[in-house]
Amino acid sequence: MSAPTAEIIAVGSELLTPHRLDTNSLFLTSRLNDAGVRVIGKCVVGDDVRALEDRMRAALARVDILIVTGGLGPTADDITRDAVASVLGRSLFENAETLAAIRERFARRRVPMPEINRRQAMVPESAIVLPNPNGTAPGLMIEDGGRLVVLLPGPPGELQPMFEACVFPRLRARAPSAVLRRRVIRIAGRAESEVDQVAEPIYSALSVSRVDVETTILAAAGQIELHLTGSGGDADEIDRVLQAGVDRLSSALAPAVVSVDGRRIEEVVGAALVARGWKLAAAESCTGGLLLECLTEIPGSSAWVAGGVVAYANEVKTGVLGVPAGMIDAHGAVSEPVATAMVDGVRTKLGAEVGVAITGIAGPSGGTAEKPVGTVVIAVRTPDRHVVKAFAFAGDRRTIRIRSVATALDLVRRLTG
Amino acid sequence: MSAPTAEIIAVGSELLTPHRLDTNSLFLTSRLNDAGVRVIGKCVVGDDVRALEDRMRAALARVDILIVTGGLGPTADDITRDAVASVLGRSLFENAETLAAIRERFARRRVPMPEINRRQAMVPESAIVLPNPNGTAPGLMIEDGGRLVVLLPGPPGELQPMFEACVFPRLRARAPSAVLRRRVIRIAGRAESEVDQVAEPIYSALSVSRVDVETTILAAAGQIELHLTGSGGDADEIDRVLQAGVDRLSSALAPAVVSVDGRRIEEVVGAALVARGWKLAAAESCTGGLLLECLTEIPGSSAWVAGGVVAYANEVKTGVLGVPAGMIDAHGAVSEPVATAMVDGVRTKLGAEVGVAITGIAGPSGGTAEKPVGTVVIAVRTPDRHVVKAFAFAGDRRTIRIRSVATALDLVRRLTG
Repeated sequence: MSAPTAEIIAVGSELLTPHRLDTNSLFLTSRLNDAGVRVIGKCVVGDDVRALEDRMRAALARVDILIVTGGLGPTADDITRDAVASVLGRSLFENAETLAAIRERFARRRVPMPEINRRQAMVPESAIVLPNPNGTAPGLMIEDGGRLVVLLPGPPGELQPMFEACVFPRLRARAPSAVLRRRVIRIAGRAESEVDQVAEPIYSALSVSRVDVETTILAAAGQIELHLTGSGGDADEIDRVLQAGVDRLSSALAPAVVSVDGRRIEEVVGAALVARGWKLAAAESCTGGLLLECLTEIPGSSAWVAGGVVAYANEVKTGVLGVPAGMIDAHGAVSEPVATAMVDGVRTKLGAEVGVAITGIAGPSGGTAEKPVGTVVIAVRTPDRHVVKAFAFAGDRRTIRIRSVATALDLVRRLTG
Repeated sequence: MSAPTAEIIAVGSELLTPHRLDTNSLFLTSRLNDAGVRVIGKCVVGDDVRALEDRMRAALARVDILIVTGGLGPTADDITRDAVASVLGRSLFENAETLAAIRERFARRRVPMPEINRRQAMVPESAIVLPNPNGTAPGLMIEDGGRLVVLLPGPPGELQPMFEACVFPRLRARAPSAVLRRRVIRIAGRAESEVDQVAEPIYSALSVSRVDVETTILAAAGQIELHLTGSGGDADEIDRVLQAGVDRLSSALAPAVVSVDGRRIEEVVGAALVARGWKLAAAESCTGGLLLECLTEIPGSSAWVAGGVVAYANEVKTGVLGVPAGMIDAHGAVSEPVATAMVDGVRTKLGAEVGVAITGIAGPSGGTAEKPVGTVVIAVRTPDRHVVKAFAFAGDRRTIRIRSVATALDLVRRLTG
């Protein structure tokens, strides 16, 4: 049995400006997945009743469950009630109970109810009214030919409790046995296309009779994620199938596999350092603090990060890290000898067991024919191992910095794991 | 003449999980608005060619401009090229020039091109190929019966430069007379509600007969932006009205105004330092490199950033920055004397004219009754001025770190401007 499907439509012209994103869909997706429902699309429309009707009709032709958020306020801009009535061919009636609840809410604040708030008591034929203890706009839920249409208010503080109290139980009751599980494999130090070539034949063999497995490959910030999403009727069976997939992919891709439990590479590195009782110190030139920032973003990182030196100017490389000035003159600041001297300097200076150094040309200027923008040298030293390597990263300044940090982290992971 | 309309479709199953949002649409909306184009809808679809085709067909029935982001990678998941070819009824051809560019990109990294990357050279009939200097996936632009279809790669570092270089000029050429202008006032060191109280009476008086001015206040990352968006038929008139608004708001809000020309506070600080011939050094504890990372993100920052020390462990504060251990024992690492000793240490050590030091408790652990999580002390010293101040920031670890950096930057701005 395949998982029921849903789409989410967010209504509001403010969500079509450069300043706002619809974040309700993240909460809704998470809870829909928990109820075994797969989200196959989401969209944003402005306060335009015709546009909303179009989107709703298109979505209802595709999915089992349609969730519309926003547009339930009292003003003329609030068009969701009208759109749903028109699309489902139902009349709107004023619901006495709902109107009483809205009046009471104003009365409690000792304010007379403005006449326009009456609009919020309009309910389509045979809709179920979802009470809103946190605002005036009630939600609505309508069963229509086997499909479920749910209208929720836009503010997260109203939407979330209403969803939990009224919608989630109904979804569970509709599909008590639909289950959807997700596993994530994180990978570092390989190109997306390489990973895909290795993984493709494995994941095409994953789906079995009663479990449907969808796979996605995701590349960002110098790291790759493989997502396996399993759906079907039996949670244990899905978990078994996904575990088998994770095992096969991990052994095919090791040692590039960072984690299979959702942990980021920074956390994996931190755990390895804690296990060995080591602390890390970093000397950063072109990445300007980005590596240290990523590491110290992890709560509790003070247990395994000593700190570091951002040696942006050459005088800091010589004065603070003790890199010989003659070495910079002879080899250039972006060179293996300088990276090694930086890593040794920062380890000694900060008394850390593990040192990392990054020196490179992030651009846009500073490149030469011999060392173009994107040339980055990374050195890592632990008490028993040492590596220094030159890389040629593509991309703009930001991308080069991110790739440098991702690569340095992966070298530390491989030398300490 | 009414403004041309656009829709944005983001492609990628990962954007339908509870963990990811399509943020490209914010950049695209902003720039489309700049080109006088109104965004009337946006949506997200998974890696499903049929679903994407449906959405594209529906959108093309509504709008003048359709932008599709993502799904241009080399793998079988990457379905955007196929979908657009099918929807527009055009065949796909391998483009020799594009293939050569992709091969060359791999060659520069001394890696053979995997066979699957050939897919990225497939181009629909009479499409314009948009070169991608920052990745392998080229973009595509297709004129189809008066409508414009634009396909862009998903990574923001590839999408944004491509849009600026190839798409924006084309949009301007299409709609030379629809005018929509935006001015941004950046503000630091004031609360959103304070700014709003000052600004409200001013911007309600801004709209005049033939110019419609929309105002938005935006608070994020310890900084506030006031956006004034003017629309109408005459660019000069809109510019005059917006300039008058910017002038009135600036004088009401100075000295909290960071810039009225779009420059970020880091850039404003950099320009002030360059003007004085000063360099900056930072000593960071709880922010772990975030301040230095923000500063060095600016191209050319090597002209005014010397570097710094991330003194995460107390031993680094004493050993590298020369903070007396007894001072830490007596006052705690988060104290005005220690912040002052840190700023003096880093200035001396790195030979920089301007020093900044941040020491605090970012949480989630480490707080005490006397110094709860969010307690942060910041010191700034220039050749002629010195300030040290304790703050109590609200929020989680990430928020506290961001607010600390924003506040430190604002102190530097006020002491050097």
